[in-house]
Amino acid sequence: MSDSKAARVPSAYQKLLDELPRTGPGTRAGEMLRRYWHPVCLSEKLKDIPMAVRMLCEDLVAFRDGKGRPGLLGIRCPHRLASLEYGQVRDDGLMCSYHGWRYDAEGRCIDQPLEPRDSDLKNKIRHLWYPVQEWRGVLWTYMGPDKESPPPLQKIDVLARTDGEVKLVDGDMRNYNYLNWMENFADMGHSTVLHGLLIRDVPEELKPYNDYSIKNWTPLPLEHVETDFGMKTVSVLDTGDPEVKFVNAWSLAIPIHWRFSGIRSGFPPDFTDERQEGGGMIRIIDDTHFELIRYNLFRKGNFPGPFTFGLPSDLKGTAERKAYDKRKYSGWEGVPALEDLVLQESQGEIPDRKLEHLATSDRGVITMRRIWHQAMEDVANGKDPKGVSRTDNGSLEVDTFHGHVRVSALKIGPENMPSSRDGGGLIRDKDGKLVFA
Amino acid sequence: MSDSKAARVPSAYQKLLDELPRTGPGTRAGEMLRRYWHPVCLSEKLKDIPMAVRMLCEDLVAFRDGKGRPGLLGIRCPHRLASLEYGQVRDDGLMCSYHGWRYDAEGRCIDQPLEPRDSDLKNKIRHLWYPVQEWRGVLWTYMGPDKESPPPLQKIDVLARTDGEVKLVDGDMRNYNYLNWMENFADMGHSTVLHGLLIRDVPEELKPYNDYSIKNWTPLPLEHVETDFGMKTVSVLDTGDPEVKFVNAWSLAIPIHWRFSGIRSGFPPDFTDERQEGGGMIRIIDDTHFELIRYNLFRKGNFPGPFTFGLPSDLKGTAERKAYDKRKYSGWEGVPALEDLVLQESQGEIPDRKLEHLATSDRGVITMRRIWHQAMEDVANGKDPKGVSRTDNGSLEVDTFHGHVRVSALKIGPENMPSSRDGGGLIRDKDGKLVFA
Amino acid sequence: MSDSKAARVPSAYQKLLDELPRTGPGTRAGEMLRRYWHPVCLSEKLKDIPMAVRMLCEDLVAFRDGKGRPGLLGIRCPHRLASLEYGQVRDDGLMCSYHGWRYDAEGRCIDQPLEPRDSDLKNKIRHLWYPVQEWRGVLWTYMGPDKESPPPLQKIDVLARTDGEVKLVDGDMRNYNYLNWMENFADMGHSTVLHGLLIRDVPEELKPYNDYSIKNWTPLPLEHVETDFGMKTVSVLDTGDPEVKFVNAWSLAIPIHWRFSGIRSGFPPDFTDERQEGGGMIRIIDDTHFELIRYNLFRKGNFPGPFTFGLPSDLKGTAERKAYDKRKYSGWEGVPALEDLVLQESQGEIPDRKLEHLATSDRGVITMRRIWHQAMEDVANGKDPKGVSRTDNGSLEVDTFHGHVRVSALKIGPENMPSSRDGGGLIRDKDGKLVFA
Repeated sequence: MSDSKAARVPSAYQKLLDELPRTGPGTRAGEMLRRYWHPVCLSEKLKDIPMAVRMLCEDLVAFRDGKGRPGLLGIRCPHRLASLEYGQVRDDGLMCSYHGWRYDAEGRCIDQPLEPRDSDLKNKIRHLWYPVQEWRGVLWTYMGPDKESPPPLQKIDVLARTDGEVKLVDGDMRNYNYLNWMENFADMGHSTVLHGLLIRDVPEELKPYNDYSIKNWTPLPLEHVETDFGMKTVSVLDTGDPEVKFVNAWSLAIPIHWRFSGIRSGFPPDFTDERQEGGGMIRIIDDTHFELIRYNLFRKGNFPGPFTFGLPSDLKGTAERKAYDKRKYSGWEGVPALEDLVLQESQGEIPDRKLEHLATSDRGVITMRRIWHQAMEDVANGKDPKGVSRTDNGSLEVDTFHGHVRVSALKIGPENMPSSRDGGGLIRDKDGKLVFA
Repeated sequence: MSDSKAARVPSAYQKLLDELPRTGPGTRAGEMLRRYWHPVCLSEKLKDIPMAVRMLCEDLVAFRDGKGRPGLLGIRCPHRLASLEYGQVRDDGLMCSYHGWRYDAEGRCIDQPLEPRDSDLKNKIRHLWYPVQEWRGVLWTYMGPDKESPPPLQKIDVLARTDGEVKLVDGDMRNYNYLNWMENFADMGHSTVLHGLLIRDVPEELKPYNDYSIKNWTPLPLEHVETDFGMKTVSVLDTGDPEVKFVNAWSLAIPIHWRFSGIRSGFPPDFTDERQEGGGMIRIIDDTHFELIRYNLFRKGNFPGPFTFGLPSDLKGTAERKAYDKRKYSGWEGVPALEDLVLQESQGEIPDRKLEHLATSDRGVITMRRIWHQAMEDVANGKDPKGVSRTDNGSLEVDTFHGHVRVSALKIGPENMPSSRDGGGLIRDKDGKLVFA
Repeated sequence: MSDSKAARVPSAYQKLLDELPRTGPGTRAGEMLRRYWHPVCLSEKLKDIPMAVRMLCEDLVAFRDGKGRPGLLGIRCPHRLASLEYGQVRDDGLMCSYHGWRYDAEGRCIDQPLEPRDSDLKNKIRHLWYPVQEWRGVLWTYMGPDKESPPPLQKIDVLARTDGEVKLVDGDMRNYNYLNWMENFADMGHSTVLHGLLIRDVPEELKPYNDYSIKNWTPLPLEHVETDFGMKTVSVLDTGDPEVKFVNAWSLAIPIHWRFSGIRSGFPPDFTDERQEGGGMIRIIDDTHFELIRYNLFRKGNFPGPFTFGLPSDLKGTAERKAYDKRKYSGWEGVPALEDLVLQESQGEIPDRKLEHLATSDRGVITMRRIWHQAMEDVANGKDPKGVSRTDNGSLEVDTFHGHVRVSALKIGPENMPSSRDGGGLIRDKDGKLVFA
């Protein structure tokens, strides 16, 4: 695809590029992923019917027993391989509809009604199972080899909040590798280009700044910082007051969480302190499919206007849909979530990263790959990877600063920024004029 | 899919499990299947247009010449590989539409209109053909290596009957291996579980028995017996009279025939002698597709009520279809034919039988596999397999007993039960109460 | 597929048969194809939106820059592999929407807005590109290794004409190998069979001849002649006047052009001199897909009636569509373009030519394969293949004679026939009766 000389990718890095997107059991990256808790579905979606779920390339069935307790089992009954998706919910477990073998949530076979009364065959059967927890409207599972004594569930700070209302939106299914998404997030530089293609709803007073930004493709100043939870990208913009900066931090918690904090994500001309406390997580289905589950905290002090998150339901941007545009997505420009979908999907189901030509602007991507690589190494060496702790309380605290900060309080390192609870309004210089970096 | 220790499947049995579902030429099971006659289509479906049919993994074309004589040829013209599906019916054969090469029903090339008049090229061409017979509304073929002198057509006893009306129903296409179906039939134990999930149309007076049966999952007493034609499963239930038993036999004739004899198949609480004389056969398309062709004899003494056989056309059971049920088959429970479809399909296109954990209740399946295995061995050793005879009249007589029988007349062995023509009514004990095993 | 003894295909020929249909880079046939100019799309279809096009198994993007200049690049941006189908047209090239890397039509990277101002990384990037030319309403490209100095564009004589109006029709997409089409054209013998299946619109006065022709499948006398541009098939039919013959020539210019000259293509009973000057070319997408682009010259002296070319939009022939006809194409007979589609497609995506049984009537196909083979050999040996010249003016002149000619002027050899501009009307013998060969 390039006339350039074949990039000389060192063989160890080439091997890593091949391994990175794999999610199945037995793969190096898949084993790393199995050391973290993963969302299975929203609690409200799992009712009195078993539900097939594919997780990390494994076909499973989620169910609630008659008492409402959730379980997660291998989808095929180990007896004659019928699918437990068509099993029957029973008080104490899930029964295969074919011959009645019944399993509890830990995979124990608790009945085989067609076997002789004195048979102990059922005691020899242990079906594939994974532990589940329900917390804050989400069903979570842990698929690691230490599933009998897993590390504590990583409780996302935003979801844990009680000073507002958390809304969750699921169902945004993608047909490509989850790393296309993650690398997009680790690479905030793309925003001034991709999300600057069309900006139609800029207030009149900001148009001059916006035009300037578009015309000059001003790259954002970005720092990529490894943290306890993963990494964050920090942007520090000058304001009219040399003692005050406008700062934004976007964070990724390895391996599936992202955090978003600004209405316009802090890109010029956004100097509003109006805050968004939200983000999301990925349900990895297999190497080429994932689902996005987004969440947002609605509370006093956060952005009060009409707020939608995720894709527009008609997958339409604000650009004109031309009759002769035969592409899958026509008129796609103008909505950031759709712009990201289109570009990520266009990279291919699993991009052949050996063909890439990375540049300075890819430092975020490189940082992320280094962190993923270290986690894979740690797991291969029998250690817990970044973000997994056996001793902490399992809370997942992620830096989400967005707003103005005094230079003396600036923290670009791995520690979290000060809270932005009191921020507000646009920044104006001493003459009352809007300013930007 | 199981946390149990990997079943130690002996390598010879493992090899058999891999071979069993194969149907193509050159496979051990496929060669066995080619020693029997197979249904191609209902006679009425083959009119004046060639019809593509895939049989045992081979792409063929069925046709009638201008005189109505049927033929079965390889689908691609051996000249330039155009499909004879688009050929033209001629008085004496089928003509390829591309260059006019014409074939008779035995694959002889009888014209090549674009070749020189004195060319003898056509005499050197012999196209792939299989012998066909039309009998009782069905077109049959024999695809064995001895197709020039095949064994006599196995004439199904029910179809041969003239004391009633035989109805045939085709078109029930399945997208999985035919053995999922056959093993389901060899394993009648599943019925009390799967077909007992929902029983809504039980007469009031039978409800107590039914409830008891459902609550206790009473397994049926089942005997599996190898016979001349294949195997039968026999269930003997006690009645109020110790001298009288209620007996049911379900039969499989290797490799594609099944026989059904009772309205409710003789499962509790069915002690009616009302008889069904029907069954069906499988048109094996390839390893993962087959078509069911069912037949039934309607005559005096057989079940007189409204009778439908096969799947409900809307693939709906009697269970509620819940709005949040996103499974392929929602509300599927309550109709046995649909229940069987759902469970068989759920086992997978070709189940990986090495992952099974067989139990006592799988004796029927094991019996069937043993019979199939012996037939494969016989064919590999140059012998005719079970059910094939060069000297008999080719009739296929299958035990289909259903009803009450005196203990002195009980025959659980391979011989057929006495005819049930005179049976009738529900069984009551000395006090006039309904009885069951 | 045949009971005949396996044809003993010599291994070198067998190798050729396998290689012939391949079109991708690195294949022997694909490398041969890359020494010719190929149509990419009609000019009018390429507007201000990038358009993904697959050519010879390569995924490319066609675009016009802001000044309307066309370009053809590899579809994936070499930076992070995003698709340039979603790129943005800029004045001087095409910009990737993800990070703004911008390319000119020769694949030079002319901007990387997120890189440091003093970076020279962009000078090290050269993206895959192919030269394009626009001529007579078609965008053409050359994908050979000598793309920097390609041979001149082969300018099709009919398209170059200015004494009439040329109409182009694109969009006839096929799901099989392009050679199925080419071999059909090289084999005009098929016409009396395939296109004679149903002839409903024969004028009353011609019916007697037509009936005779159909009944006797009179093969056409056909000569296959290798020419400078490829090959032509010549048919010479007797007329009532021994000094006058009725002649038709159908031509193929290697590797993708065909030429058609008669309304009824000169098959009996067509002795009209009414001329068609048209033909078409193939856009090879990959091994199993191609698009037909047809053209026709409308001018005084050419067939004046209503004229349609290509497939009927409803893919319906003139034959009855029977309710029980379940074939993909029912009622397909009667329209030659549809008849050809049906039979070509029926040969399979890539026919397994080793199973063929060629005959005398396949001399045209054999001639064509020999020419293709020689061209592949020439390219493998570093020579320009047939039809490619570095020194000529690049015009593609193809014999398209159709009509009556005096015996003294007959040219069956590679040279072109005399112009048929003055022909006209049906031929009648001395008694005023219609004549034919």
